[in-house]
Amino acid sequence: MQGFIHKAASSILFIVLVVQAVSAYKKRPEPCKRLVLYYHVLFDGTNEANATSAIVSNITKLGDFNFGQFVVFDDPMTDDHHLLSPPVARAQGFYFYNMKTTYNAGFAYKLIFNSSDYKGTLNLMGADIIAQEARDISVVGGTGDFFMARGICTLRTDTFQGNAYFRLQMDIKLYECY
Amino acid sequence: MQGFIHKAASSILFIVLVVQAVSAYKKRPEPCKRLVLYYHVLFDGTNEANATSAIVSNITKLGDFNFGQFVVFDDPMTDDHHLLSPPVARAQGFYFYNMKTTYNAGFAYKLIFNSSDYKGTLNLMGADIIAQEARDISVVGGTGDFFMARGICTLRTDTFQGNAYFRLQMDIKLYECY
Amino acid sequence: MQGFIHKAASSILFIVLVVQAVSAYKKRPEPCKRLVLYYHVLFDGTNEANATSAIVSNITKLGDFNFGQFVVFDDPMTDDHHLLSPPVARAQGFYFYNMKTTYNAGFAYKLIFNSSDYKGTLNLMGADIIAQEARDISVVGGTGDFFMARGICTLRTDTFQGNAYFRLQMDIKLYECY
Repeated sequence: MQGFIHKAASSILFIVLVVQAVSAYKKRPEPCKRLVLYYHVLFDGTNEANATSAIVSNITKLGDFNFGQFVVFDDPMTDDHHLLSPPVARAQGFYFYNMKTTYNAGFAYKLIFNSSDYKGTLNLMGADIIAQEARDISVVGGTGDFFMARGICTLRTDTFQGNAYFRLQMDIKLYECY
Repeated sequence: MQGFIHKAASSILFIVLVVQAVSAYKKRPEPCKRLVLYYHVLFDGTNEANATSAIVSNITKLGDFNFGQFVVFDDPMTDDHHLLSPPVARAQGFYFYNMKTTYNAGFAYKLIFNSSDYKGTLNLMGADIIAQEARDISVVGGTGDFFMARGICTLRTDTFQGNAYFRLQMDIKLYECY
Repeated sequence: MQGFIHKAASSILFIVLVVQAVSAYKKRPEPCKRLVLYYHVLFDGTNEANATSAIVSNITKLGDFNFGQFVVFDDPMTDDHHLLSPPVARAQGFYFYNMKTTYNAGFAYKLIFNSSDYKGTLNLMGADIIAQEARDISVVGGTGDFFMARGICTLRTDTFQGNAYFRLQMDIKLYECY
């Protein structure tokens, strides 16, 4: 009986140690939720009524890649490539160019869901290293149906038609879901 | 004895699986800490000496809801409704209007605590969807007494007296505490 | 045998309870990864070719401490004090002054690693309370080799040579590693 208690105690200890070790350096998990959405940017050059983005600060004199320019956006998100599909969310926030030697942007924005599928928000920030085919930014929090979510959002340029229109694929993988 | 070892092994396996399942899709927890504070915004229109907020970028031509305007603030936080109560923290950061069809702001700010109760900071970001009675933003990190905190902060408009003065209730619920 | 099953069941229950309690209020962990880097800021006053930072918004009339000024940067990070050492990462993002009564900045930036040691990004935000010798900001996410990282980055002013050049030590401690 003592042997059993001893074994039970050491197995508890072992499991607690395993749990602690796991919390220090954890195995990369599979996503617990995945959403692939498309982000449509219509710029304010030619048509204010349609525009969804506006420049709020001037380009500085550093380099030739828009360094320092902030753009605020309020963009429809669809679940396919088509701008005119019913939006499933809105992306609201800003990006700004922050590299001197090539186009490279910082993003900070919210995805706002208000549909029969999802209600709530996801908050994202990270580096859009435009020269890379796929670049990852962080999902740093969420609310509503995305309570306390964390994850990775992979950006891919889907089409680029100058300043008038561009479209990004956002492949959102959440690794913490409640 | 072999039966016991087998059972012990499978119970460990079972527990490890439970722990992993928990880490993939977790039950919504109760807050481990809760703080209800009031955020007082005094604008820079009439009285610079009292003002705690200042506009740093012009409104763009997109829509009629201040689209693109950034406001930087350094505001006292109190634990009751009164502006002149001793502040328990300061809120420092910015908000910016980012919706074309109604008032809707993005927030990114820090709560800085330096009192006998708390020393440290909380870092927050999210969407202030002003038309909603209660709207949630994310607590994405913390330092000092709020080491590595995460959670949700619910904003409610407590009073709005035009641009001169408005007050928000911030109901902060932390779900990760150390 | 029944006694064994009962004991096994209650030990499982006990362990699950321990795990849940741990997830509500956890012991402060040791870092699972630590990086000490130096951040070099060369300002745009005198030499645009060398500059790595640029002012993007004017100082407002609130107080005498640059309130409201945004600075966008693209700065080399080295692992020693020397500006001309080979960079191990770049820091891209912005800071902005947000206190009326002393110099106090908000930071939001990415560390971009692209070396044989590390590939990926860390996303940081927080309060640089310049008057304090050491001040902590939050690591709110990561990608690539820093997948889903969270932690604390302690800033220390290493040298300050007016607006022309200043250097910060960034002592990055990650507490969630995969």
